[in-house]
Amino acid sequence: MPQFPLPPGSTLGILGGGQLGRMLALAAARLGFETAVLERDADSPAGQVATHTIVGGYDDPAALEALARLARVVTYEFENVPAASVLKLQALGVDVAPGAEALSVAQDRVAEKQFLNASGAPTVAFAFADSAAGAAAAAATMGAPLLMKTRREGYDGKGQRWVEHVADAAGAFEALGGRPVILEAPADFVRELSVIAARGRDGATAVYPLAENHHEHGILRRSLAPALVMPHIAFEAEKISARVLQGLNYVGVIGIELFEMRDGRLLVNEIAPRVHNSGHWTQDGCSVDQFEQHVRAVAGWPLGPTQPHARIEMLNLLGDEVDQWAKLAAEPDSRLHLYGKRDAKPGRKMGHVNKLRAL
Amino acid sequence: MPQFPLPPGSTLGILGGGQLGRMLALAAARLGFETAVLERDADSPAGQVATHTIVGGYDDPAALEALARLARVVTYEFENVPAASVLKLQALGVDVAPGAEALSVAQDRVAEKQFLNASGAPTVAFAFADSAAGAAAAAATMGAPLLMKTRREGYDGKGQRWVEHVADAAGAFEALGGRPVILEAPADFVRELSVIAARGRDGATAVYPLAENHHEHGILRRSLAPALVMPHIAFEAEKISARVLQGLNYVGVIGIELFEMRDGRLLVNEIAPRVHNSGHWTQDGCSVDQFEQHVRAVAGWPLGPTQPHARIEMLNLLGDEVDQWAKLAAEPDSRLHLYGKRDAKPGRKMGHVNKLRAL
Repeated sequence: MPQFPLPPGSTLGILGGGQLGRMLALAAARLGFETAVLERDADSPAGQVATHTIVGGYDDPAALEALARLARVVTYEFENVPAASVLKLQALGVDVAPGAEALSVAQDRVAEKQFLNASGAPTVAFAFADSAAGAAAAAATMGAPLLMKTRREGYDGKGQRWVEHVADAAGAFEALGGRPVILEAPADFVRELSVIAARGRDGATAVYPLAENHHEHGILRRSLAPALVMPHIAFEAEKISARVLQGLNYVGVIGIELFEMRDGRLLVNEIAPRVHNSGHWTQDGCSVDQFEQHVRAVAGWPLGPTQPHARIEMLNLLGDEVDQWAKLAAEPDSRLHLYGKRDAKPGRKMGHVNKLRAL
Repeated sequence: MPQFPLPPGSTLGILGGGQLGRMLALAAARLGFETAVLERDADSPAGQVATHTIVGGYDDPAALEALARLARVVTYEFENVPAASVLKLQALGVDVAPGAEALSVAQDRVAEKQFLNASGAPTVAFAFADSAAGAAAAAATMGAPLLMKTRREGYDGKGQRWVEHVADAAGAFEALGGRPVILEAPADFVRELSVIAARGRDGATAVYPLAENHHEHGILRRSLAPALVMPHIAFEAEKISARVLQGLNYVGVIGIELFEMRDGRLLVNEIAPRVHNSGHWTQDGCSVDQFEQHVRAVAGWPLGPTQPHARIEMLNLLGDEVDQWAKLAAEPDSRLHLYGKRDAKPGRKMGHVNKLRAL
């Protein structure tokens, strides 16, 4: 097994070659690490800046063996890493962080909600079903409207649909592919918030200030951080973060999406066991950003500070919005972060801009 | 010729694979550029993070042709790029920035001082000589002590020696290899300062606050920035920057080393037509650091802001000082920047740490 703290010059493995892997690789380089990215695509955002790229699927044994030869510590940018791949890497003597527990919880929306409620991190009411009849029965018990989602996979609003009437539940189940589903009561929230938190190998935790998030068509559009919140909300978010991190014996950065309810409570919407889009503001708002923080945690380094030195409005650049780069580059308070993606398909995350505001 | 502003996704060429090239490549990646590094060593600090590495000498025609095929715009981390290499790249349709004028001035200490004085940027008194007899005659005219340096090459205190007595001048000339030399009057300075400035392709300029520098054995040890200075000193530094940048029709970031004299004047010690060690503080003290600023200038983007949001004490980590990484990583206000160099030879720049202080 690797020795911690991992010394500079070591190679950090990253499963996934997208923008999160890219920004992790850039942060790792700043701290003197080499990086090895495993990714299906030979020309990926992360591969462009990594020391090594291994081209292959996350479940390709030869690719995983090649990664294990380069890196004794592996992390990921994407929670749908197959459990078998983690076991395979571990069998090869590799430390994978965040660990298998976090992945298994994050990959199944039912396991996730059960874990959260058991940990004292409240969520909306929910039920689950494996059949159209089961879905209909659950909907009859819960009442409508409700949100039906596949238990596994799905992101950015994919793999989910609203059920307006109880009678529509069976049809929604079939429309989602007849796969196991979760049924969620609607959240009467006033705002969507998120908290980016981290836990080191020594069990220490660090929590960034809350971000206020705005979605469009299920995709994050805009985050404002630090969000203006009542003190008890900030306190509650820290409490939830601590419970989730401890409960998963977590190592790394986690993104926790929250609903701020009309009655002043915070509910957890979902958790992402990785760096998170709503934490990109930390790149220009904090001295140690979420990417360096994640590398520090995974490498067994002490966590860095999380206090902000600026207020940031983070805007995702989706599809051809990235063509605004020249205009944005001319704004003195806009910091551009572009991902090196060639094909600006509609809705694709091509980059983001952090707009600096005074604290 | 390339079109400016250079769009994201373009490849920026970098001559030199050291830490300056590395930090330029990281900044370029953040803005969505690919990078191609030309460097003799296959495993170099910049090569570890660049999209492409071309292994070869700066004067290797095949290597320069390979670079020109990848990159329409090329910059460098090192001022001793052969003039013939720049001409070769230009003949291949490549734009090289900063340009040949800046390089020719920076490569010859006599041409440099003549340019500076002609531009209204004062220096110490100097003379030059091509022979031992000439050196003796010049020393007799100037008086001793004086500092003798080779006209070309030499950095970090190499290629220079103090002449304590006029009678030692001929011997010093021979000791420096019998090459053409410059003789410089000693500067009665109270402090060594430096200014990092930039000029865009549109002629706009941007100047960072002054840094106060401390050298040991000719190597930069420590910079403190923004330096506490009298207002007229800051004004004078900006005036000198503007004159130098205009005079060289410069594109990119330049480092200008200054002597703050006992009588309140500023003299220019030397100029470096590239990002500069004494500007590393901007990585954690400013929203746009010198590396992004250089990429912006060279790519024909608008320059970014230069105001600081923190005061920084930058310490170089020389040789085995880099072994302190674990202790430094645990300091909340220390930001580590490590270069990925394997061999911690004594005096070798292995990394630096930016210690944050309140403004």
